[in-house]
Amino acid sequence: MNNITIRPATEADLPAMHALVYELAVYEKEPEAVVTTPAEYLEDFRNGLFEGHIAELDGQVAGMTLFFMAYSTWRGKMLYLDDFVVSEKFRRHGIGQLLFDAFVAEGRNRGCRMIKWQVLDWNTPALNFYKKNNAEIEEGWWNGRIIFSNK
Amino acid sequence: MNNITIRPATEADLPAMHALVYELAVYEKEPEAVVTTPAEYLEDFRNGLFEGHIAELDGQVAGMTLFFMAYSTWRGKMLYLDDFVVSEKFRRHGIGQLLFDAFVAEGRNRGCRMIKWQVLDWNTPALNFYKKNNAEIEEGWWNGRIIFSNK
Repeated sequence: MNNITIRPATEADLPAMHALVYELAVYEKEPEAVVTTPAEYLEDFRNGLFEGHIAELDGQVAGMTLFFMAYSTWRGKMLYLDDFVVSEKFRRHGIGQLLFDAFVAEGRNRGCRMIKWQVLDWNTPALNFYKKNNAEIEEGWWNGRIIFSNK
Repeated sequence: MNNITIRPATEADLPAMHALVYELAVYEKEPEAVVTTPAEYLEDFRNGLFEGHIAELDGQVAGMTLFFMAYSTWRGKMLYLDDFVVSEKFRRHGIGQLLFDAFVAEGRNRGCRMIKWQVLDWNTPALNFYKKNNAEIEEGWWNGRIIFSNK
């Protein structure tokens, strides 16, 4: 019988969160795109730029979500999920579902009309997971971006 | 000779910004998706959920950008452009370029590594504009969302 806990992330969790982000970036075939550092996470977390939830399995950090308040001119305030990771070795315990449920509840509790995130078009397991959770998947938008610095 | 000014948005601009958002939503074929009101913009602006720039042409509001500080786990803090509108009747004066330049400068000045936004895949004029401005267009991500309320 496994003991899974979902709780808000604290400063002490930031190195583990950064490691999970890196693990997922490897899976998504873009490890070189992770230019942030754990020290930067600490500064930005203290400045209120993001929050998160941590999943612990028997006392070990097994996964996390990282989110922030964002805004839609059409739908008003929304909670945006920038990253959502369950470490490979902790999968198939239902941890992802509990983390996602906590994220959805967080959005509702803050009075958001909408929660939003992005998913890679080839990531079928993730797409199936979101569809099972009654999410809409929108295919018609592309991302525009300008990167000022790769360091 | 037209006199174009770009300046930060203030509370007094919010009704005009809402009208511009609605005008663009009609162009994007989704006017019913705009469920926000000018009164809600005021509350959310006062709560710091977004900021913006206003373009004036000969003293009239001609366009705007609306943005907020967001976070990328891979690249750290970034400025996110949620809406960018030049009113139909004020086009072809270079207002869009000045607004976009001001947004780019805002992102740089805040020490962001990246600025980001979304564009509809069929909006060729917008895509050409962004490419001309050395933006990358990413096609591989889909949006996931859950809408709690349509009111």
